Amino acid sequence: MGQAGCKGLYQSLFDYKTEKYVIAKNKKVGLLYRLLQVSILTYLVVWVFLVKKCYQDTDTSLQSSIITKVKGVTFTNTSELGERLWDVADYVIPPQGENVFFVITNLVVTPNQRQETCAESESIPDALCYEDSDCPPGEPVVAGNGVRTGRCLRAGSEQKGTCEIFAWCPVETKSRPAKPLLGEAEDFTVYIRNFIRFPKFNFSKTNVLDTTDRAFLKSCKFGPKDPYCPIFRLGSVVSWTGSSFQEIAVQGGVIGIQIEWDCDLDRAPSECYPRYYFNRLDNRFSENSLSSGYNFRFAKYYRDAAGVELRTLFKAYGIRFDVMVNGKAGKFNIIPTVINVGSGVALMGVGSFFCDLVLIYFIKKSHFYRDKKYEEARAAGRRQDHPGHGQETSFPGLALPLSPQVTLDQSQAALGLSFSVR
Amino acid sequence: MGQAGCKGLYQSLFDYKTEKYVIAKNKKVGLLYRLLQVSILTYLVVWVFLVKKCYQDTDTSLQSSIITKVKGVTFTNTSELGERLWDVADYVIPPQGENVFFVITNLVVTPNQRQETCAESESIPDALCYEDSDCPPGEPVVAGNGVRTGRCLRAGSEQKGTCEIFAWCPVETKSRPAKPLLGEAEDFTVYIRNFIRFPKFNFSKTNVLDTTDRAFLKSCKFGPKDPYCPIFRLGSVVSWTGSSFQEIAVQGGVIGIQIEWDCDLDRAPSECYPRYYFNRLDNRFSENSLSSGYNFRFAKYYRDAAGVELRTLFKAYGIRFDVMVNGKAGKFNIIPTVINVGSGVALMGVGSFFCDLVLIYFIKKSHFYRDKKYEEARAAGRRQDHPGHGQETSFPGLALPLSPQVTLDQSQAALGLSFSVR
Amino acid sequence: MGQAGCKGLYQSLFDYKTEKYVIAKNKKVGLLYRLLQVSILTYLVVWVFLVKKCYQDTDTSLQSSIITKVKGVTFTNTSELGERLWDVADYVIPPQGENVFFVITNLVVTPNQRQETCAESESIPDALCYEDSDCPPGEPVVAGNGVRTGRCLRAGSEQKGTCEIFAWCPVETKSRPAKPLLGEAEDFTVYIRNFIRFPKFNFSKTNVLDTTDRAFLKSCKFGPKDPYCPIFRLGSVVSWTGSSFQEIAVQGGVIGIQIEWDCDLDRAPSECYPRYYFNRLDNRFSENSLSSGYNFRFAKYYRDAAGVELRTLFKAYGIRFDVMVNGKAGKFNIIPTVINVGSGVALMGVGSFFCDLVLIYFIKKSHFYRDKKYEEARAAGRRQDHPGHGQETSFPGLALPLSPQVTLDQSQAALGLSFSVR
Repeated sequence: MGQAGCKGLYQSLFDYKTEKYVIAKNKKVGLLYRLLQVSILTYLVVWVFLVKKCYQDTDTSLQSSIITKVKGVTFTNTSELGERLWDVADYVIPPQGENVFFVITNLVVTPNQRQETCAESESIPDALCYEDSDCPPGEPVVAGNGVRTGRCLRAGSEQKGTCEIFAWCPVETKSRPAKPLLGEAEDFTVYIRNFIRFPKFNFSKTNVLDTTDRAFLKSCKFGPKDPYCPIFRLGSVVSWTGSSFQEIAVQGGVIGIQIEWDCDLDRAPSECYPRYYFNRLDNRFSENSLSSGYNFRFAKYYRDAAGVELRTLFKAYGIRFDVMVNGKAGKFNIIPTVINVGSGVALMGVGSFFCDLVLIYFIKKSHFYRDKKYEEARAAGRRQDHPGHGQETSFPGLALPLSPQVTLDQSQAALGLSFSVR
Repeated sequence: MGQAGCKGLYQSLFDYKTEKYVIAKNKKVGLLYRLLQVSILTYLVVWVFLVKKCYQDTDTSLQSSIITKVKGVTFTNTSELGERLWDVADYVIPPQGENVFFVITNLVVTPNQRQETCAESESIPDALCYEDSDCPPGEPVVAGNGVRTGRCLRAGSEQKGTCEIFAWCPVETKSRPAKPLLGEAEDFTVYIRNFIRFPKFNFSKTNVLDTTDRAFLKSCKFGPKDPYCPIFRLGSVVSWTGSSFQEIAVQGGVIGIQIEWDCDLDRAPSECYPRYYFNRLDNRFSENSLSSGYNFRFAKYYRDAAGVELRTLFKAYGIRFDVMVNGKAGKFNIIPTVINVGSGVALMGVGSFFCDLVLIYFIKKSHFYRDKKYEEARAAGRRQDHPGHGQETSFPGLALPLSPQVTLDQSQAALGLSFSVR
Repeated sequence: MGQAGCKGLYQSLFDYKTEKYVIAKNKKVGLLYRLLQVSILTYLVVWVFLVKKCYQDTDTSLQSSIITKVKGVTFTNTSELGERLWDVADYVIPPQGENVFFVITNLVVTPNQRQETCAESESIPDALCYEDSDCPPGEPVVAGNGVRTGRCLRAGSEQKGTCEIFAWCPVETKSRPAKPLLGEAEDFTVYIRNFIRFPKFNFSKTNVLDTTDRAFLKSCKFGPKDPYCPIFRLGSVVSWTGSSFQEIAVQGGVIGIQIEWDCDLDRAPSECYPRYYFNRLDNRFSENSLSSGYNFRFAKYYRDAAGVELRTLFKAYGIRFDVMVNGKAGKFNIIPTVINVGSGVALMGVGSFFCDLVLIYFIKKSHFYRDKKYEEARAAGRRQDHPGHGQETSFPGLALPLSPQVTLDQSQAALGLSFSVR
């Protein structure tokens, strides 16, 4: 027996089994099926493959390195600072040219602060006092500049005053100038160098074209006419976000410079260009002072002749530029192709299933086709089954398409749960 | 012939071909099949579609911009620095409010360092010496503060000393205070503004609600009761990571503030809220001083009256806060839906295949059903094939489910490699 | 009828329907089909599952926190600065140990700049003048250091001079030293601590092994022999990118340190190790001065005895290290497994389809098999259909495989659009 089994196994190994089909000579259903096929095929080819490029493996986690360099000088003449020239080392923070950089456009300067006692600013609600007991010593002023000493300072015969504090004195009291100090920063330029790498494909590129000659980089400015120049005028960048530079310069703001790489690596590497987008990233229309504008305080520390430390406090308003890079690279890969073709084929099966439903339930001669499609096999049982001879009795109630049974049948059927009622 | 061919082609173009099925009137297998169908369907609907939302296209590469602003002042009184008030410009590094900011909580100050010669610190093993020859001139001390001058400095009658070095003198010798200098930083607050954008869907949002009134932002604190307030108390943030602020303040640490956006863009944009998570990102239990805590050195540079440069060296211990944003947005898209439905349908096919196996091998009347299912077609050959008449002879050895042939048959079968043994 | 319908429905609910197959006893097609099956299966198992691990759900959006700490001192002796020792607080910018840090290797120092008037540098083309009218007062010099005062300064009897400007004077005129000032930075080391977390799997790890003892961290250096030591010698890092440290030290550059995590979370967490890669991220071969090298200007501000502000301007050349982290974690998940198995099964269907084509069109007895496979069902119509009796007439023209009809037939067929010509 084992020998015979092996031989039988071997023989049947190379038999080819193929599904048996019934050809329903019905033009309506045939046409419907072809229409479905063409629709699915069109969707697959046009949308999935041509538009969405689903035959590609994609990499969206790119590595990126950014170098920025601002250029420009401007001259100011104010009562506090006198005549003063501002260059890059003065107005760019931090100086090292990272992907986030801040350009000062407006300043509140409080020079010569020392560690001593003075009156707290009147604009801080928590510092208001009527008598010394309103100023518990040692307690910091909420949202204030220092720690209370215990005295209430009242000017002349006024009833109301502010607590005396120990702090960097005098405290900052001036408010933001209405006209930006460094409004001419509009004409400064920034050079942005971006190096990217898609680790999955080991593909790297930079936004400064290798072919670019030195003269081009010396003179070009990014714009609609020159979309590959990596030098940007600050005023233009702000205007492309829909904001006014002079407005944003007063109270500060955050501008996003997005570099987008969408590379089809099935094409030549030279066709993989960056595209730049500019957005304003703070709520410019917000009523809320906390969530509009952008400013921070920093200080420069000195020593006087006696060696005592003093500082100049700056409240800097300005524009923070966030250079953000995102990108996508796609390259032909067999796996997503197979997955998408596979699910396309499966989708064909769904179309075929839908036509089957129509064929065996909804057309006139559906009984006939149902009997052809389904061949009953009832082992031994009540009735002898004739091979190849379809069933001829069919439950007539099924002809009513809206009877509850049929409804159930169809909804189940739509997911492959077909059965026939007899 | 061409004409006839065209006509035939045209006619058959709209024939509908449908697979022929055999209805096996076997309750057990039928029940098994329905059970499999219901399981697969349930899995597909509940897990794949409702829980995992696989009908959505997702974007996980979001763009994010963060603005942070720390508030708070504190007063210290130490022998080195005297009475001193610390405000934001003093203790936050860097000052410009980026997504990574550092709050000083403890300090080792070495004031008035000048470029000159002095003895190296005794805590550095490489600097120990017994005589001048132990200090080769010009060679830097490993992990030390300067370059050896060639002399060995021994205090009084001691045998052992340290090499003289050229360095910023005097060198830092004090060790970390056991009590944090700025322990009151626990009560400082930080305001975090986060703007995000999902480029694939061009959807942007900020964590500061537009509807929020100014008063709310002035007074609120983030917490379980107020999960949408963007103002965080530093002490609370640390305690949510399971650490003690006063402990972490001594030797420093890194705290991660994660903002997670999980947006279902099929719903209203207002339902897309950020969620905040807090983690400690340094190995707090590590024995290893290199991998626990967080500190760095920086200096402030001055000139004395004679114009000679001097500096104050700070070894700053403190808490670095890393605000990290990650997110996912999902939106209905036909492609993943089709892929998932398609593979669900394919899975049905696997279920059907499994039932086929049972039907034609493992039940009593399997021979009968096998003959019904497979119709032999042998061209011309040895035996005349009767259309629609299944084979009646079957190899009985196959009834033994554990014979090697059958095992092979089944494992192959499980991947669509069915064949029958005869 | 309703009652009978229900009963019929109930009975047929557990009928099992199975596709009817025709066994084609044809060795060639059988062999072809088995070959296709084995190929698809091999591809599926070996490539999709073993190599690409498509049975895993992957997370590529990792969270990462980096702490860096540079160590080393060096001594320089130049005419401008005299004898000087450089330590970490002097040469690392910014000091706080973030993922991007800059090490100064070369310097152009312009000390004692004050806000006053002086001659613009001769190297700036826009500043050249012959007479005062070439210097319109108030206008900044393009790419220059200040604002024109209106005078043209000519040395002695020279015809050509440069405009007088109001600026930080004297302006920077020296050029880059040909030998790097801090060439010994080659021997500095940097300790890099990286904490990562895959949010999807809530898995976190650090590159400093917990088991590592303190002595190991004190003495180890990263290298081929020690791939898990987190301490890197700067010179080695640069040489691994294929550059020379002394060369890059002169004009600066950007080095990327990539930490790559490829974690198979189906294995033990301890098998998830980081791998380090080193790249140079600036165009070292570029002719273009703007896109090669790396430098920036910063200033230290002082006050003289009279309280007038002065500054020392530094043009710092050096190496910026960008520590970048990317990673991928994979873990078994039923959904991608099902999708991939599903599309594999669908691919089998494509193979089966291809064999069908061969069977019914391209082999000798194809007519016979075609008739067996397709059973005609023509409702009522012209001819009585005999169940189980295949069609016997076939269009002979189809035997010509290159006739246009057939070509059309095949290309359509390849996408499931089969039909037969009769």
